[in-house]
Amino acid sequence: MSGESFPPQAGGGDGQTPITAADVAAQVGGRLVGDPTVVVRGIAPLDRAGPHDLSFLAHLRYASWFATSRAGVVLVAPAFEAQAGTPTTRIVVDKPTDAMVGLLARFHRAEPRAAGIHPTAVIAPTARLGADVTIDAFVVIGDDVVIGDRSWISAGAKIGAGSVLGADVRLHVNAVVYPFSELGDRVVLHAGAQVGREGFGFVPRPTGVVRIPHVGRCVLEHDVEIGANSCVDRGSVDDTVIGAGTKIDSLVQIGHNVRIGRFCFFASQAGIAGSTRIEDGAQIGGQVGVSGHLTIGAKATVAAQAGVFGDIPSGEIWSGYPARPHKEQLRSQAAVSRLAKLIRPLERLLMREASEPANGDGR
Amino acid sequence: MSGESFPPQAGGGDGQTPITAADVAAQVGGRLVGDPTVVVRGIAPLDRAGPHDLSFLAHLRYASWFATSRAGVVLVAPAFEAQAGTPTTRIVVDKPTDAMVGLLARFHRAEPRAAGIHPTAVIAPTARLGADVTIDAFVVIGDDVVIGDRSWISAGAKIGAGSVLGADVRLHVNAVVYPFSELGDRVVLHAGAQVGREGFGFVPRPTGVVRIPHVGRCVLEHDVEIGANSCVDRGSVDDTVIGAGTKIDSLVQIGHNVRIGRFCFFASQAGIAGSTRIEDGAQIGGQVGVSGHLTIGAKATVAAQAGVFGDIPSGEIWSGYPARPHKEQLRSQAAVSRLAKLIRPLERLLMREASEPANGDGR
Amino acid sequence: MSGESFPPQAGGGDGQTPITAADVAAQVGGRLVGDPTVVVRGIAPLDRAGPHDLSFLAHLRYASWFATSRAGVVLVAPAFEAQAGTPTTRIVVDKPTDAMVGLLARFHRAEPRAAGIHPTAVIAPTARLGADVTIDAFVVIGDDVVIGDRSWISAGAKIGAGSVLGADVRLHVNAVVYPFSELGDRVVLHAGAQVGREGFGFVPRPTGVVRIPHVGRCVLEHDVEIGANSCVDRGSVDDTVIGAGTKIDSLVQIGHNVRIGRFCFFASQAGIAGSTRIEDGAQIGGQVGVSGHLTIGAKATVAAQAGVFGDIPSGEIWSGYPARPHKEQLRSQAAVSRLAKLIRPLERLLMREASEPANGDGR
Repeated sequence: MSGESFPPQAGGGDGQTPITAADVAAQVGGRLVGDPTVVVRGIAPLDRAGPHDLSFLAHLRYASWFATSRAGVVLVAPAFEAQAGTPTTRIVVDKPTDAMVGLLARFHRAEPRAAGIHPTAVIAPTARLGADVTIDAFVVIGDDVVIGDRSWISAGAKIGAGSVLGADVRLHVNAVVYPFSELGDRVVLHAGAQVGREGFGFVPRPTGVVRIPHVGRCVLEHDVEIGANSCVDRGSVDDTVIGAGTKIDSLVQIGHNVRIGRFCFFASQAGIAGSTRIEDGAQIGGQVGVSGHLTIGAKATVAAQAGVFGDIPSGEIWSGYPARPHKEQLRSQAAVSRLAKLIRPLERLLMREASEPANGDGR
Repeated sequence: MSGESFPPQAGGGDGQTPITAADVAAQVGGRLVGDPTVVVRGIAPLDRAGPHDLSFLAHLRYASWFATSRAGVVLVAPAFEAQAGTPTTRIVVDKPTDAMVGLLARFHRAEPRAAGIHPTAVIAPTARLGADVTIDAFVVIGDDVVIGDRSWISAGAKIGAGSVLGADVRLHVNAVVYPFSELGDRVVLHAGAQVGREGFGFVPRPTGVVRIPHVGRCVLEHDVEIGANSCVDRGSVDDTVIGAGTKIDSLVQIGHNVRIGRFCFFASQAGIAGSTRIEDGAQIGGQVGVSGHLTIGAKATVAAQAGVFGDIPSGEIWSGYPARPHKEQLRSQAAVSRLAKLIRPLERLLMREASEPANGDGR
Repeated sequence: MSGESFPPQAGGGDGQTPITAADVAAQVGGRLVGDPTVVVRGIAPLDRAGPHDLSFLAHLRYASWFATSRAGVVLVAPAFEAQAGTPTTRIVVDKPTDAMVGLLARFHRAEPRAAGIHPTAVIAPTARLGADVTIDAFVVIGDDVVIGDRSWISAGAKIGAGSVLGADVRLHVNAVVYPFSELGDRVVLHAGAQVGREGFGFVPRPTGVVRIPHVGRCVLEHDVEIGANSCVDRGSVDDTVIGAGTKIDSLVQIGHNVRIGRFCFFASQAGIAGSTRIEDGAQIGGQVGVSGHLTIGAKATVAAQAGVFGDIPSGEIWSGYPARPHKEQLRSQAAVSRLAKLIRPLERLLMREASEPANGDGR
């Protein structure tokens, strides 16, 4: 069990696209200090960057890393133009972090995309595929499926009968669209995501429980993104709908009949129980649980790990278990942490009060 | 990013099966008010229903939706027979919600099922398949696997060597049965479910940790259902067993050697650590975590997000972190929320008491 | 719904390898009492073992099971050599549990492994495969992928373009390696695990949010194990790195830019948000959530379900929500549970104090 010789190179970034310091400065509109011919091929934080990496210094906190960084070129905020440090080629910009984000596309190595339909794909004769669609190996497409132009269905993905996908949809490998689902344009399903499953609804019968047939749809509107291995159930008597532009991270569960508005964010491992409504622009933290039949108002924020058992008004920040307004939660937490050393004296005091019945009257 | 024109139709339901109001009334044993020839093709809640949708009004809370609903036919409780509202074709039944559930099967469009074995499937020569089995594209079935009559193995599912599946089993797409697992009749694995993996057991060795070989089985008894992307480990020195009729939702983790009784329910994202026993009829809420080597008694209920670190007696309702009887939990929560405004006066009082040592004696 | 006749046999273990009691005694260095010719074929706990099962008695707690156990051979601690019980063939060893673990490999039935490349696999011509590699059915391997000697890629697994895998790697069925990932030697991905996805990073733009291109890598060092359906994102501007020997259970989420040290353990359903660092030997409990940009020190332990919102120093044990040192947490929990019956008297006392303003001064 060695590990020392792996990974082979320290630098981040895909390392494929050489760019000169002068190029970088021009793109970000920065002022170059040092050698304009230095070439970078990747991006890395100051502590791990090598001579062919671009890095950035935006905060004093990282000055000690800058002091000894091996980075070839560093984007620095104006305050750090003359900061002591080994990197001599510096590009001065107002917002180094934003500049860096703007440069990422130049260092990003795109996944290669084949044209057309892989010969191993199994596609129902009644399916209709748009122009310039890519269908990779071992994809299965059921009866009457419709797929819009330029969509890319990666290897091993499955699309059940009757589903309709818009244009520029991307299903990553092994993603699953259950039958009769509807996906808008530019929807992304990451690897292993499952959408359109009949939800967890059962009714008791003399011979045991039986599954409720689900006749509602699973609708993902335009620009929705579903993370790896996340699950979205179809509706039972209503549709499950995820509004346009909403982004969902990995391992999230969305129950049946849930209605999510536009431009919401769900961090990973959140779970939303059946028939809950989440309005536009709400932000749901990681591992949050929301009970069924509730309403989370527009632009509300639910902090990580909160357990939500009641409605949340629009615009409010809630946290904790059971969830309540974040400020109340913080006050309670503070009170509880101060309580620990008060509880013994309090018990003694109350015991003494109880044993001196005359006390209250006799003063 | 438009979104406005998607999804194309507002109504829920699969929209395939036209049924007249008279038909509906006959099936549910209800009394028809209005036009018996109105045809419905789907089901939708009052606020989203269109002229070809069936809807229902069971509670006064939804009366405002009923007032303007476009639903073609509405199942109404007797109290709402004359309720003000646009829908004029009404079917009066005692329990509109139950009636609706009973009708779902008529509106449910079943996933088409091919007969026989898809030519792309890879099936070991030693595998034995029952009568009328469906094996879809890209399925892999290992050595000595046995599959009972009428089972349906969907595309991309994998069944490891030596596994035994009963009759009428349904593996949805990309479901995984690890080698040497045993599934009873009518077991359902949803898409991406993984059962029979060697669990998370390691022992320290001079060269690092090594995995404990798992010789226990993973046994899913009759009528067990495992949700999408859920995971059930096989046993290490014992079996992992899930009792007949137990239903498990999405993204649930069941550790090695866990024994679950009959007719239990597990909501999504619950996790059960190794060697815990959960007795018949227990109900486990969403995101609940149960530590290892515990016992959850028969018909016990564990509320959502509870963290269980001790045994729970039969029939009790527990909640919270750490989990305890729900009533105690509620009392504690109430006390804590009242504490916040008492903590300052309490601290002042105790400080005063502490600074007046004579007080206790001198009265 | 019968269930009674399933599963067909009560004993655990794979049941394939007959071993005599004398053999068992020799292997564990124990002293045999009873019939050396008794043959066992599997392993089971005392309460479920049959005449051909080996079992063990290490603790008085299980003496009642031992009293009536049907086990053919039982490993017993010295104190139990003469314990009352039906099993007459006993092997006396100092540590029966350790002895049992040492025997597991003899009862373990390995999954059969085919040699070479299955004809259905789709492998890019530019991929380079080491010696003695197994590639099972429906595997897809992208451009420029490198796979080390003796690695085994199970059915339905996908390896994206540019990824590099070491020697003796095991991808279980339907595991996914996104493009440009790096896996060391002996790395194991369980079924449905997804590594190397572009993480959850978006920036606002006038037309909506857009995804940040991720140029950091996803690096799993030697001997890393990733559980079923777990997800590890690639880095955005840094790499995501999981250190050598670290073991991760099922349904865990590791965000972008996270750096995990060597020999850490992550129980199932834990989630680590972006850019957090977890140092060597840390242990993360089930369903733990850790916020982004934090540091969990070396050999720290985070108890199950904890919600971590701040750094944790090395070697400490933290728990609860919000997480803090476990001893403080326990004191708080104890105080809270004692508070419930104090809150009414306390409120009365404070009210009385408040209504007697002279009290504080007049004494």
